[in-house]
Amino acid sequence: MSSQLRIGVIGYGYWGPNLVRNVNRLADAAAVSVCDYHESRREHVRTQYPGMAALHDWREVVTDPAVDAVIIATPVTTHFELARAALQEGKHVLVEKPMAASLAEAEELLELSSARGLTLMVGHTFLYQGAIRRIAKMASGGELGELLYLDSTRANLGILQDDINVIWDLAPHDFSIMDHVVGEMPLSVSATGATHTDRRLEEIAFVTLHYRDDLIGHVNVNWLSPVKIRKILFGGTRKMVVYDDTEPGEKVKVYDRGVERRSEQDQRHNELIQYRAGDVFVPALDMTEPLFAEVKDFADSIRERRKPLADAESGIRVVRLLELACRSLAQGGVPLEVKP
Amino acid sequence: MSSQLRIGVIGYGYWGPNLVRNVNRLADAAAVSVCDYHESRREHVRTQYPGMAALHDWREVVTDPAVDAVIIATPVTTHFELARAALQEGKHVLVEKPMAASLAEAEELLELSSARGLTLMVGHTFLYQGAIRRIAKMASGGELGELLYLDSTRANLGILQDDINVIWDLAPHDFSIMDHVVGEMPLSVSATGATHTDRRLEEIAFVTLHYRDDLIGHVNVNWLSPVKIRKILFGGTRKMVVYDDTEPGEKVKVYDRGVERRSEQDQRHNELIQYRAGDVFVPALDMTEPLFAEVKDFADSIRERRKPLADAESGIRVVRLLELACRSLAQGGVPLEVKP
Amino acid sequence: MSSQLRIGVIGYGYWGPNLVRNVNRLADAAAVSVCDYHESRREHVRTQYPGMAALHDWREVVTDPAVDAVIIATPVTTHFELARAALQEGKHVLVEKPMAASLAEAEELLELSSARGLTLMVGHTFLYQGAIRRIAKMASGGELGELLYLDSTRANLGILQDDINVIWDLAPHDFSIMDHVVGEMPLSVSATGATHTDRRLEEIAFVTLHYRDDLIGHVNVNWLSPVKIRKILFGGTRKMVVYDDTEPGEKVKVYDRGVERRSEQDQRHNELIQYRAGDVFVPALDMTEPLFAEVKDFADSIRERRKPLADAESGIRVVRLLELACRSLAQGGVPLEVKP
Amino acid sequence: MSSQLRIGVIGYGYWGPNLVRNVNRLADAAAVSVCDYHESRREHVRTQYPGMAALHDWREVVTDPAVDAVIIATPVTTHFELARAALQEGKHVLVEKPMAASLAEAEELLELSSARGLTLMVGHTFLYQGAIRRIAKMASGGELGELLYLDSTRANLGILQDDINVIWDLAPHDFSIMDHVVGEMPLSVSATGATHTDRRLEEIAFVTLHYRDDLIGHVNVNWLSPVKIRKILFGGTRKMVVYDDTEPGEKVKVYDRGVERRSEQDQRHNELIQYRAGDVFVPALDMTEPLFAEVKDFADSIRERRKPLADAESGIRVVRLLELACRSLAQGGVPLEVKP
Repeated sequence: MSSQLRIGVIGYGYWGPNLVRNVNRLADAAAVSVCDYHESRREHVRTQYPGMAALHDWREVVTDPAVDAVIIATPVTTHFELARAALQEGKHVLVEKPMAASLAEAEELLELSSARGLTLMVGHTFLYQGAIRRIAKMASGGELGELLYLDSTRANLGILQDDINVIWDLAPHDFSIMDHVVGEMPLSVSATGATHTDRRLEEIAFVTLHYRDDLIGHVNVNWLSPVKIRKILFGGTRKMVVYDDTEPGEKVKVYDRGVERRSEQDQRHNELIQYRAGDVFVPALDMTEPLFAEVKDFADSIRERRKPLADAESGIRVVRLLELACRSLAQGGVPLEVKP
Repeated sequence: MSSQLRIGVIGYGYWGPNLVRNVNRLADAAAVSVCDYHESRREHVRTQYPGMAALHDWREVVTDPAVDAVIIATPVTTHFELARAALQEGKHVLVEKPMAASLAEAEELLELSSARGLTLMVGHTFLYQGAIRRIAKMASGGELGELLYLDSTRANLGILQDDINVIWDLAPHDFSIMDHVVGEMPLSVSATGATHTDRRLEEIAFVTLHYRDDLIGHVNVNWLSPVKIRKILFGGTRKMVVYDDTEPGEKVKVYDRGVERRSEQDQRHNELIQYRAGDVFVPALDMTEPLFAEVKDFADSIRERRKPLADAESGIRVVRLLELACRSLAQGGVPLEVKP
Repeated sequence: MSSQLRIGVIGYGYWGPNLVRNVNRLADAAAVSVCDYHESRREHVRTQYPGMAALHDWREVVTDPAVDAVIIATPVTTHFELARAALQEGKHVLVEKPMAASLAEAEELLELSSARGLTLMVGHTFLYQGAIRRIAKMASGGELGELLYLDSTRANLGILQDDINVIWDLAPHDFSIMDHVVGEMPLSVSATGATHTDRRLEEIAFVTLHYRDDLIGHVNVNWLSPVKIRKILFGGTRKMVVYDDTEPGEKVKVYDRGVERRSEQDQRHNELIQYRAGDVFVPALDMTEPLFAEVKDFADSIRERRKPLADAESGIRVVRLLELACRSLAQGGVPLEVKP
Repeated sequence: MSSQLRIGVIGYGYWGPNLVRNVNRLADAAAVSVCDYHESRREHVRTQYPGMAALHDWREVVTDPAVDAVIIATPVTTHFELARAALQEGKHVLVEKPMAASLAEAEELLELSSARGLTLMVGHTFLYQGAIRRIAKMASGGELGELLYLDSTRANLGILQDDINVIWDLAPHDFSIMDHVVGEMPLSVSATGATHTDRRLEEIAFVTLHYRDDLIGHVNVNWLSPVKIRKILFGGTRKMVVYDDTEPGEKVKVYDRGVERRSEQDQRHNELIQYRAGDVFVPALDMTEPLFAEVKDFADSIRERRKPLADAESGIRVVRLLELACRSLAQGGVPLEVKP
């Protein structure tokens, strides 16, 4: 490996340009080639980055000896084939979330990367966001007390995907965040949802994660919302957090409040349910672009021969939850055990 | 019955004073007696309404020949006994929501009222709110197109009840609203939830209602929230509605947007998921206090010998859903069929 | 004076009922008579408070030997005559804001009360609100650093007064708050405004208060707004406060930020103007109803023979600013000196 | 002029890169050279646009025969010298707002461009924003009725400029918007403000514009705010508009309400001041990037030999108001007549 990490990017649709831009902000890495099926996108690469190779065939990227690492930003159904080929050619791999289209695929990729001693990372971008990092630190440091629940709503504005349902599209964000904040897997998963088209791919779904000690997680994902929602409540015995990713300036609000028992329906009730009593704290956050922190971790982990924060194991855990959620949904919400 | 409808009110905790105040705003009815176990509350009645009887024993209310109708605003576990006694004494009855603590109780009350030719009504207050009435009218008039989903979040600020779980406390509001807007019962119900105290009464729960034609309803009820939330999304094929009951001035927002397919992950995606394209309309609403409209419907339905909007049948439907939701929750989310 | 302070209330329009209700919440005082020109309002008093005298002639209140103190909640043009008569009869007086219709009137009232040794207080309710008390404490305690500016916007929804302009109607709130927080009078006042009716009473106006050391105050009052606004910014060298009285739960937000110089138009500019960097703190506030704290201070100051917080001097200072603002407005904004 | 309009850009600080990017989106124009004093910025140009000349001396741009038009995005004190030189060399000119540092300068530029038959345009970007275009159309089409007031607040987060005060920095936006919406000049201007540094450049200021027929405009500009504010109220006799440029999705809200008289302080008052009665409409807006529409108008107006929307005359009107506002401010708010 040269002193400069040379990165090839496969897929230049929505996310690819952001990846290339951030890779090129790194001091010790550079995007050397980009690949996409669409000529218009390759043309865009040539205009924007005249020195960069703009290729049609992804095999040219993964077999290029001048490429040290590959970033894969293609539809999820192609992740396995592309990542496997890249690993087999000895390239380090960062694959977009979700890591693969099935648990079996994801596990095979991990095995391959381990056998070859290569870095395999998954694009769980939120693990690199200042807001989520702050919340995770509060949770692990005991500031929230014992966690009681996590409740996420993630709603988009009526834009459907053609190849996957809303759980595979949106829930990887929530599953990876909860995985990071809780630090362990749930015991069981149940899910419900609905679809209104011939494709039978759910556009709205609700997933419940049952953790140890009565901690409960809930994920509400929706493609058919009239408004964009990106909100997670983290309820703890000592403090509670409201995270709203649509807020530009105040993404994290920390509520200093415990839980209060009410012994009867009394006059105080009215006041109690109207207003809360504790202080609220809105911490200043690290505003680094999460994607920059992500590709930096990718480059650093390769160089330092260590695991990245969003390692392949976290990718597998998220895929495992996606599979279970969809299977429960197909059975009307029956809870399914998460095997260790 | 005298020309003035004489009403006795049992229970003067949180809701009772509001009921008495609104009954006394009616032109053709008046609260003549109030009953509560607590001396301090009876004292409050005497100070506020010097002419009104303030009683300790509810039997004095239901057996009083000078009382035409009884309003019951006591804990849910007492609804059945009180309502049955009042109906047996020939009184019309308005009972707070939920109508009774079980489906069997609720059905027995309906039977009794039918046999006696008495009005039996349940306090589904939201059916009388300008905002909900407007939304129901849009739904039934076809303005929203075909309904795709209803998604409600109802969160309170860390105040627990001692006798019932969060579903029995908060979901009657959502179930009665959905019952009114959809106009038919769901086919099945599933629910999940969690409790963190010795009482084993859930403080947070998630209920899914599966209707005909892939319409899905979801109810997120939470006693442990750091913020008060009262929000329902109504998704239709033609328009969508966001109802936020915590907004003083703009409770209902109507979004003029359909659903858009996206065939590939393209550059447009970024713009599409950021901003919506259609007009938004915020209708002026009837600001009548819902509780006034409710007690007026009670008095009018007695006088006109017709069913009130929130009739006993709607009370039974809501209790049926509450029972099923709790049973599904106890089984980890297994879907339970709603028997016709 | 009996052990119970006996209070007569003149004027039972918008504010009067709230005053009576709060007086009756006091342990050691009671409203004994109410006076209003309108029979319908007196009828309302009789229904609501059967034991209370409901009078037509205010002279009956001020001359009643059974009355220790008088609260005046009538149009501002009558304040002087009523307060003077009450003081002359030896009654303590709480008069609604603004204290009188002119500086000369206000000063005469103060003189009279001093000569008689009577309490004279003005209804600057905001001095008794938890939010304003918290902000005043932060300012006086140095937490905000040196004050740089105060900027208030107070807008109502298209409701006009017939007897006074918008400055006399709304600005007393802001002037009394700024007087309390700053702790000294401005050096000069200038104001602009406009009226669109035959009455020539301004419906919208903008007042600037120039204080020592370049501290500037600004008050934007508007009767013709489509939305209700109640917002004051307090800018200090160390911290800044946004006070929004329309917010039920988070009225006060404290921003932990200093002032930053920018030496040139650089790339950083874009980020800098988008997001702020410091923590935000939302303190829990004393939620006591401000009017209750106000009438309690009235009763306590009479009993303890001390000045109330909202003393006659503060009433005079506010009236002085009102007069100067209107005079400057009539001259197109010419700055007028505040004589010591 | 070749078929492709060749544009040189002087100044590559905050706004320059956005200008270049949008010029290059035009079908019939291209940025051919960029000039900036800072080597780091020129380096940035070379990396980003390898084919483009990155120059140190602005004279090379204005004398280049291969340049048809020049865009000037430098500090305001340099606008005059640069624009004059470009016009003298026969180049069309788009100069950033404000057009020049004094009325005399601005008028000389207009004269020069007229004598040479060259397009002279000023960067009043907001005239090209979908939101402002929609509001201007509502105003000119009579939908708002007769205009009563315009009230703007524009607050930044504690970032100071070194060469101009806050009026010259921020008020050009508001003056150009009001100029466009009202369609005529005010009769007089008065302003107040304050500065807290040795530089004696105001950091906060309040400007009142008095128009014909009692229409009043007010502009509150503030560099020392803890929060970013971009809000303008447009009050009309038929409808009122709230424009909030910090809202990503709902920048324009149209309130369907007239003005209501209140003859006395009655009970209704309370309800009236709490909630508004009319419908609210949030129109979908043209989301075209305003700067793209601006540079397109520049190119089109050159090609079609017509005036652009943001013509030199509008630039002069804005500079005239800036001068008057600062002169009034220096005199403590004395109103100054706007000479025709």
